[in-house]
Amino acid sequence: MYPNLLVKRASLTPNRLAIIFEDQQWTFSQLQQEAIDFAEKLHKLGVNKGMRIAILASSSPQLVTVLHGCMQLGCELVMLNERLTEDELIYQLNDSQSDVLLVDRLDRSLMYGNRISFNQVTGASNKQFQIDAEWPKDRTITIMYTSGTTGKPKGVRQTLENHVMSAMGSALNLGVQPNDCWLCAMPLFHISGFSILMRSVLYGMTVSLHTKFDANKSIEEILNGTVTRMSVVAVTLERLISVLEERNQTFPDTFQSMLVGGGPVPLHYLERAIKCKIPVLQTYGMTETSSQTTTLSSEDAIRKLGSAGKPLFFAEIRISGKKEIGEICIKGPHVTKGYIGAASSKDPQDDGWLHTGDMGYIDDEGYLYVVDRRSDLIISGGENIYPAEVEQAIVKHSAVKEAGVTGIQDEKWGHVPIAFVVLKSEVTEEELKSFMKPQLATYKQPVRYYFIEELPRNASNKILRRKLHEYL
Amino acid sequence: MYPNLLVKRASLTPNRLAIIFEDQQWTFSQLQQEAIDFAEKLHKLGVNKGMRIAILASSSPQLVTVLHGCMQLGCELVMLNERLTEDELIYQLNDSQSDVLLVDRLDRSLMYGNRISFNQVTGASNKQFQIDAEWPKDRTITIMYTSGTTGKPKGVRQTLENHVMSAMGSALNLGVQPNDCWLCAMPLFHISGFSILMRSVLYGMTVSLHTKFDANKSIEEILNGTVTRMSVVAVTLERLISVLEERNQTFPDTFQSMLVGGGPVPLHYLERAIKCKIPVLQTYGMTETSSQTTTLSSEDAIRKLGSAGKPLFFAEIRISGKKEIGEICIKGPHVTKGYIGAASSKDPQDDGWLHTGDMGYIDDEGYLYVVDRRSDLIISGGENIYPAEVEQAIVKHSAVKEAGVTGIQDEKWGHVPIAFVVLKSEVTEEELKSFMKPQLATYKQPVRYYFIEELPRNASNKILRRKLHEYL
Repeated sequence: MYPNLLVKRASLTPNRLAIIFEDQQWTFSQLQQEAIDFAEKLHKLGVNKGMRIAILASSSPQLVTVLHGCMQLGCELVMLNERLTEDELIYQLNDSQSDVLLVDRLDRSLMYGNRISFNQVTGASNKQFQIDAEWPKDRTITIMYTSGTTGKPKGVRQTLENHVMSAMGSALNLGVQPNDCWLCAMPLFHISGFSILMRSVLYGMTVSLHTKFDANKSIEEILNGTVTRMSVVAVTLERLISVLEERNQTFPDTFQSMLVGGGPVPLHYLERAIKCKIPVLQTYGMTETSSQTTTLSSEDAIRKLGSAGKPLFFAEIRISGKKEIGEICIKGPHVTKGYIGAASSKDPQDDGWLHTGDMGYIDDEGYLYVVDRRSDLIISGGENIYPAEVEQAIVKHSAVKEAGVTGIQDEKWGHVPIAFVVLKSEVTEEELKSFMKPQLATYKQPVRYYFIEELPRNASNKILRRKLHEYL
Repeated sequence: MYPNLLVKRASLTPNRLAIIFEDQQWTFSQLQQEAIDFAEKLHKLGVNKGMRIAILASSSPQLVTVLHGCMQLGCELVMLNERLTEDELIYQLNDSQSDVLLVDRLDRSLMYGNRISFNQVTGASNKQFQIDAEWPKDRTITIMYTSGTTGKPKGVRQTLENHVMSAMGSALNLGVQPNDCWLCAMPLFHISGFSILMRSVLYGMTVSLHTKFDANKSIEEILNGTVTRMSVVAVTLERLISVLEERNQTFPDTFQSMLVGGGPVPLHYLERAIKCKIPVLQTYGMTETSSQTTTLSSEDAIRKLGSAGKPLFFAEIRISGKKEIGEICIKGPHVTKGYIGAASSKDPQDDGWLHTGDMGYIDDEGYLYVVDRRSDLIISGGENIYPAEVEQAIVKHSAVKEAGVTGIQDEKWGHVPIAFVVLKSEVTEEELKSFMKPQLATYKQPVRYYFIEELPRNASNKILRRKLHEYL
């Protein structure tokens, strides 16, 4: 058992700031009060302990209250990505058999059996319930969907122990300082954002919440000493650097660490960051590991630039295969115990290790270098795109015989998807694009469709996606 | 499972300083190397994984190597207090059925079946063994003896999980900073000292090791910024304050926290400490909880002076009984799972809580005030003295009918024991003192013997030790 995270934190440091947002702020005590109030109203509306609640909402302080409120009530959170299409969201709602869909605004078009808006909850009366002082370690806190080789999204179960041990391992690497404040401009429905909320209640750390990334606003809070830590992906890091370079400014000593994750980071970004005195620390993490598995430590930031660091205290990695570069495998109390829904029979660590599909090597000193994310993964501005999922959407069109999707480099997003299509009958690129629109989130849409005669395949008839580039 | 603590730490930050001692220093990599070397030699001498090794040694860097070496080999450490008499030590050796007694010097008079000196080990050749990369959470790391109401010392099992969760809870209260260095002048055979070594490998934190407490030397290392944290008991805190007051000096901002534990601390010590800018944080802990259970946080240091703070993140306390002041009960992953030897059938948390016997109350804001340690406990300079144990030694004398022991206040040590004796035949105080000398450690010896007619007892014939003061 672990203590009820928010209640324990509010009892330890009730008056410390939990959240700052524009000119508003909440102490841990206030956050607890609002979260429990929300939970009591939700309970009044028929929501009970053990239920699964899907949440579709933009980042806001209210969302933080809602997430904590649902946790207080003892519910499992299905974190929906607001960039997905309705078709994609409906799949996740059905697969997770969510009891309730909570939406931040009534004008969201997504419909579901039991749909409740934040305002409907806040307008309800209260119904008290027994607040648990302790939570079981294996309680599912969050469920986040991620796709795999098959293209079918899988609901990853993130337990209390996953979140706690992830945060503790990170603390032993980055340290915990009295005035720490973590800027969160990452989506809260992703583990990159949600894990900041978990660290906040465990460490007693302030979160500066931004509804979306804004380079100028972020830099301002860092320069004035409010913010001491921040998480970014390559694209947002580059924007921060560009602004600093333009203004000829550097970061102050009060700023402790800039965690750079969510995919590959060009080495020259890191070099430019160091020149601006941004203490960049590359990290390697994923939904299945409730955030960071390896992270560079500040003392190695410059000497080992380009490496994703060493496994955090409670984590282990190994490279499988006989060659120097092989598949990265992960072990530790932060690794998911399993999936829900259609994927629930899959064991993510059947031999005690999570096989990531990502390729990398460990140097003589034990530092991990991620050479390539799994061959079937395209990372675009920190979002994961699984070619199989896109291909399956394309082939639904009656004119299409088969399709192959891969990523190409993009100045702004790192990579974007493109599609290669073998046709049965005539269809235009425009027709395919409008056919695809309702099926997949915008960031997953191929930017170009190439019509070819045949897809490159190996002996066992698998698409060789890396070979698709030769058709360009 | 947790990672092998020292091996993991040395892999993460090999070049960070682990130990500084006078003008010598060891990095984590060097400490690992020396520990494994010691373990291999010990193995050559027939010591194997799973054996129980009793250690009798003064604090020194070599002792740190020895302790880590034994842990690497997979042995359980029976931590002997060098202030005890031979009779007392023999009891612990027999009760723990230690396989080996390791002594730092051959000229120690304590003899035991398989006795090996540090030099005998370092002179041996090496025999390699399989180093475990992971350690089970419930592995017994240390065994420390503490007495109880019966006066019989009990061997407390401190598991890996106890030590790890204690250190993690402390980190979430005190923080972990990049240049932290903890001054250890507490005995390593006590949990107060040993827990500093555990924090060191978990946090990657430097320990400045002092073989014994020296106020001037401690102050020097604090003033020059080397040391950022320190643990003291009331007596040593007072000496630090006196020196600072004499010199009209205050502590610098680089110093983070002065943990004051091991028994009651006079309020005026704390007030004088604050004037010298010593950030004193009272703590409440014990052998059975592998160090701290509650600790004041720095933001409350002044406002809540006199309180022992709130339970650390993973710990819980409650006051049992119907009145405001009652017995302090403790729960959490840092609480011992049990005893070894004669006491092994006792369950320290039969209802899920450790009943400490200490009296205290929790104020409206949740802060613990320890009103009195268990009625049968005398704390003298941070060492625990159990009256029952002293009484049992006294009544062994043929002239003694019965004896009662209690503590009186002492300017220097806080408290010292005095004895009340009912005689069967003539004996002098001097005779009793020399009779007692070989039986009990010096600090446990009553400073005065009072001969009385009858002991105060309650209806069920139990000695009312608090009433003994009326006979003075």
